Amino acid sequence: MIHLYTDSSPNGFKISIALEELNLTYQLHHVRIDAGEHQRPEFLALNPHGRIPVLVDDENGIILFESAAILLYLANKTQRLISSDPLQYWKTVQWLIFHASSVGPILGQRVHFEMFEQPPYESAIQRYRALTESTFLTLDQQLQQSPWIAGQDYSIADIAHFSWLHIAQIIGFDFSQFPHLSTWFQRVAERPAVQRGISIPHPATGP
Amino acid sequence: MIHLYTDSSPNGFKISIALEELNLTYQLHHVRIDAGEHQRPEFLALNPHGRIPVLVDDENGIILFESAAILLYLANKTQRLISSDPLQYWKTVQWLIFHASSVGPILGQRVHFEMFEQPPYESAIQRYRALTESTFLTLDQQLQQSPWIAGQDYSIADIAHFSWLHIAQIIGFDFSQFPHLSTWFQRVAERPAVQRGISIPHPATGP
Repeated sequence: MIHLYTDSSPNGFKISIALEELNLTYQLHHVRIDAGEHQRPEFLALNPHGRIPVLVDDENGIILFESAAILLYLANKTQRLISSDPLQYWKTVQWLIFHASSVGPILGQRVHFEMFEQPPYESAIQRYRALTESTFLTLDQQLQQSPWIAGQDYSIADIAHFSWLHIAQIIGFDFSQFPHLSTWFQRVAERPAVQRGISIPHPATGP
Repeated sequence: MIHLYTDSSPNGFKISIALEELNLTYQLHHVRIDAGEHQRPEFLALNPHGRIPVLVDDENGIILFESAAILLYLANKTQRLISSDPLQYWKTVQWLIFHASSVGPILGQRVHFEMFEQPPYESAIQRYRALTESTFLTLDQQLQQSPWIAGQDYSIADIAHFSWLHIAQIIGFDFSQFPHLSTWFQRVAERPAVQRGISIPHPATGP
């Protein structure tokens, strides 16, 4: 049995979407961040950095944190959502890590400065808007060349990016000026497994 | 032949160290960021996001950006610097991505606010100091339990973290209050391949 420790968040949705796409049986453990449950000793034993998601696979004893590591693990385990062709496999890893190291962290910082920093600090707001739009432009150019982020097939790279852009859309970080990114987003959003994934443990709410 | 496009930077050193550790023959292409060479069309054709490092492997036509993707590729190609045991393999991927998504991006933002933002903005400086120290604490706890970041063996997870901490040390981001992290850092720094790697294309300079 697979166990998913998660909450409704951009990083959590990556794994609930992937598990739904892969049609794997899993047990959901809702870690209520707003109640501080990610700081409890039993959760810190799974991830000492205190972040969701965490996946536990009873079949082999693997315990993993970091959503990109979990996505890559699930794709390797099932031989799905990533190509076995080496060129395509490594392109998928590359775009997965582009999300993990650039798109995700920068969107996270933009959320802080645009929504929470008091008093608002205009220079930082502009900085993170420009940095997120630089990543959106790179994605838009990529999606002009191929239907999915890593090439001809829907993959874990699409799931990673979609999960954060789903939250971006909810909180009003506009990316409608990037036409290829926008049509790709709609195409991913229509997938039934994605619709299920973004409602686990419950749908995200606005600001 | 492997081609490495790089400059003297935390992300570039990850790959020069790995190539030196693996004793692979490679051709160095120095992309002078201070001369804007990362924005030239021929470089953007390799990485549309305009960042070093990029690795090209003539043997199979693979072109990769994102340092964590390149490290994982080199480890898989050579079956070194990562264990073939599944539990250990995925622990290494996890800590590699912990670096790529948390330690590296947050140190990068700290560099900006602590060294470049004008006028200095104290709230952001404090924010990124606290966030980097949170990751240092997680690493310190991990290194209290095992000699290397992902467990019993030196791996690409150590190389990724070392490269950024090497820069952190040069620019005066102190981590001496974390004893296990500090002794691990010294142990990695003494490796001959690491000493060669951090001088390619040339040693980093201070602030």
